[in-house]
Amino acid sequence: MIDHLVVIGVGLIGGSFALDLKKKGLVGRVTGVGRGRTNLENARELGIIDAIADSATEAVKDADLVLLAIPVGAMAAVFRDIAAALPPKCILTDAGSTKQDVVAAARRGLGGKIGQFVPGHPIAGAETSGAEVARTGLYNHKPCVLTPLAENAPIAVETVQAAWKACGAQVTLMEAAQHDQVFAAVSHLPHMVAFALMEELAGRPDAETYFRHAGSGVRDFTRIAGSHPEMWRDISLANKDALVAEMDAFIAKLAGIRDLLVSGDSQALEGLFTRAREARLNWIKGKHS
Amino acid sequence: MIDHLVVIGVGLIGGSFALDLKKKGLVGRVTGVGRGRTNLENARELGIIDAIADSATEAVKDADLVLLAIPVGAMAAVFRDIAAALPPKCILTDAGSTKQDVVAAARRGLGGKIGQFVPGHPIAGAETSGAEVARTGLYNHKPCVLTPLAENAPIAVETVQAAWKACGAQVTLMEAAQHDQVFAAVSHLPHMVAFALMEELAGRPDAETYFRHAGSGVRDFTRIAGSHPEMWRDISLANKDALVAEMDAFIAKLAGIRDLLVSGDSQALEGLFTRAREARLNWIKGKHS
Repeated sequence: MIDHLVVIGVGLIGGSFALDLKKKGLVGRVTGVGRGRTNLENARELGIIDAIADSATEAVKDADLVLLAIPVGAMAAVFRDIAAALPPKCILTDAGSTKQDVVAAARRGLGGKIGQFVPGHPIAGAETSGAEVARTGLYNHKPCVLTPLAENAPIAVETVQAAWKACGAQVTLMEAAQHDQVFAAVSHLPHMVAFALMEELAGRPDAETYFRHAGSGVRDFTRIAGSHPEMWRDISLANKDALVAEMDAFIAKLAGIRDLLVSGDSQALEGLFTRAREARLNWIKGKHS
Repeated sequence: MIDHLVVIGVGLIGGSFALDLKKKGLVGRVTGVGRGRTNLENARELGIIDAIADSATEAVKDADLVLLAIPVGAMAAVFRDIAAALPPKCILTDAGSTKQDVVAAARRGLGGKIGQFVPGHPIAGAETSGAEVARTGLYNHKPCVLTPLAENAPIAVETVQAAWKACGAQVTLMEAAQHDQVFAAVSHLPHMVAFALMEELAGRPDAETYFRHAGSGVRDFTRIAGSHPEMWRDISLANKDALVAEMDAFIAKLAGIRDLLVSGDSQALEGLFTRAREARLNWIKGKHS
């Protein structure tokens, strides 16, 4: 039981976390903090939060659990601001899509209180934003990665893990560096690709003709290009090294397919498409079994 | 009213076409032709077709409308086979994803009967295959492009157009060359990209770790990688020139994003992501208005 939950950034991610814990009766009260007053008032009206705090520093003073659900580039300032006010009993976690940079920012900002911070990353499709899209059940059967620190007390890790499990998430633990490498490939790269395709088509003089004929394939393919630009600016730069390596590997793979087309190697193309298709079918099957 | 419809290739595309026209009472009887006997028997049991013909040549003898819904690479042989048997009253159309190569194959195969062939391309998400996935309503509100030939009689074009409209499709007419250029960008390229991503991940020694953490973004992003390998081998090679040009443009765009990351140009990245996001939101909004 968490008496006082503070959510910094009450959007889809932070709001849905609060809603699920409330629904399960696992939190006493929820305080919201954020840049947009209207969004916070919406969140209160929707029952996502009970109170609005003027600042993160104010809010954390008697908090038991704090979730940072803001763009990763905005986290350093919050760690710095709240460090002095953070009570010893309070556990801090985040929902950032990159982990090494967030951990570094937390070490700098929190100093000796770093053991209170358990880094996390819930994976939930989030191309919409704002408190009004928050909902219970968002995390059900979704992966959530925690990258605990050597300084974390076991109880701190267990508390954060239990909270995400209560939301229905499938929690796994790994090193921050491995997290960033894996997500560069399975999340950050696909986002860059989807943004690139939309940018490429939209920049053409006859863009309208192209979009008019784009079907459900492109719609699904580019869903993630609807994601928050500021959030993705921060993620892509925060995980730059791993992401650039993934982009290089992917560009090489695409160039390889291009060369197979130029040489008309139908057998190699069919083999590649077959392997890709089978990999996807096996993956999807595994997810639902 | 079409007395006798012949569907060559009774899968998602051909089967759904037959089902919709039957439901609207616009066809008398439907004959199916195909490589897989079991699939044809399934189609007959499901009421998609009324009869099975042993060969396309046999089937078209007293046909009024023939739909070729097979991989584009397999069409040349069918045109050649049926040319002599094709009665003058019969109108021929296809559902191939590329048009210039199909038109060229039709000209070679049909000779003086080329005016009876109205090339077409219904756009309907098709990463599943076989008669058992055919359904009514597949084409409702979906685009369908026809690329009529100079030799087509107006009545032939109108008949094919009316059939697709009866299925609920939004029919547009364009030149075959423009069709292939547009679809290289909005369909063929995204398929190559989705295949490339799955192939890249699946080929890694620790592929399982990557897939375990892939979320709904990758699932939607790669849905089209579940498409039929043989069909996509044919499409990609048939539209090779336009597709290679699109791949080059896209690789250059991706490399540009990579360079922005390396130089840490946060403003340019955010600008690009914002433009991409807005282009997608406007497109999706336009589709549903």
